[in-house]
Amino acid sequence: MSKIRNIADFPKPGILFKDITPLLASPRAFHIVLDAIAERFIGEHIDAIVGVEARGFIFGGALAARLNASFVPARKPGKLPAACDEVQYETEYSVATLEMHKGSLAEEARVVVVDDLLATGGTAKAAAELVRKQGGYVVAYAFAVELTFLGGRERLMPVKVESVIQY
Amino acid sequence: MSKIRNIADFPKPGILFKDITPLLASPRAFHIVLDAIAERFIGEHIDAIVGVEARGFIFGGALAARLNASFVPARKPGKLPAACDEVQYETEYSVATLEMHKGSLAEEARVVVVDDLLATGGTAKAAAELVRKQGGYVVAYAFAVELTFLGGRERLMPVKVESVIQY
Repeated sequence: MSKIRNIADFPKPGILFKDITPLLASPRAFHIVLDAIAERFIGEHIDAIVGVEARGFIFGGALAARLNASFVPARKPGKLPAACDEVQYETEYSVATLEMHKGSLAEEARVVVVDDLLATGGTAKAAAELVRKQGGYVVAYAFAVELTFLGGRERLMPVKVESVIQY
Repeated sequence: MSKIRNIADFPKPGILFKDITPLLASPRAFHIVLDAIAERFIGEHIDAIVGVEARGFIFGGALAARLNASFVPARKPGKLPAACDEVQYETEYSVATLEMHKGSLAEEARVVVVDDLLATGGTAKAAAELVRKQGGYVVAYAFAVELTFLGGRERLMPVKVESVIQY
């Protein structure tokens, strides 16, 4: 899809970065992606969207509004002001921590974890762990873009993975 | 409004932080705020929403989808993968830089700069400078929350400032 731009050697040498800003710059493309994700949840009650900082906020915020769900941010350490649950996880590049405000989810809340892109799945899986720590249920993961060759989908099984653009 | 929570001494001692996560956690409150902002632009053609990292992405993404506008992220240094314009500005706490991908806006694009909260207005003003650098026109600034006692609105004049919840 021409709305995803390849950037060589970002954020590190040897990484071919998938830049979604051309997709966001096209109202039509952005709508199509949001519609494509939202329609997979027709008939499913979704209580909350957990959006992963920072690009997951763009899709997650819009999706929460469409699905009439809560929006819950999952953030890097030190960004959320109140008491947090946290999970450590490995990324392609390093070890990282993800935080979520304690008490963000009702018991058995039905949650979709949203990010812009599925690579190895480490960040999304950490967000799902935070959801489960708070007693929530991860209905699915949803991504605008999926890099299938990195095996993220397998890592996130058996939970359902929805993505709109695959490479 | 009870959906905005006060957190003392965050991010620094002496600062009373306005936490918007309870607002985001309420689908109804989030909708009301989005509707209240969107309705101020009925009849105005808006080409692009510039959302300020990171909480501005949540409102900005949802608003771009509603207004059928482009979404353009304004980010901290090193986050955007392609060539950027940048602007330096002073915050309440330090000196900071904001970046926007070069070529994000068409000439004379009509833009709304969106963030979650208006404090002194420094970040929003930097985002507007980036818009103007690229030949865009700032129609308005839009915020969920405005801390009126910090004088941000005066600093952003003569551009129109829209906010939903004022303190």
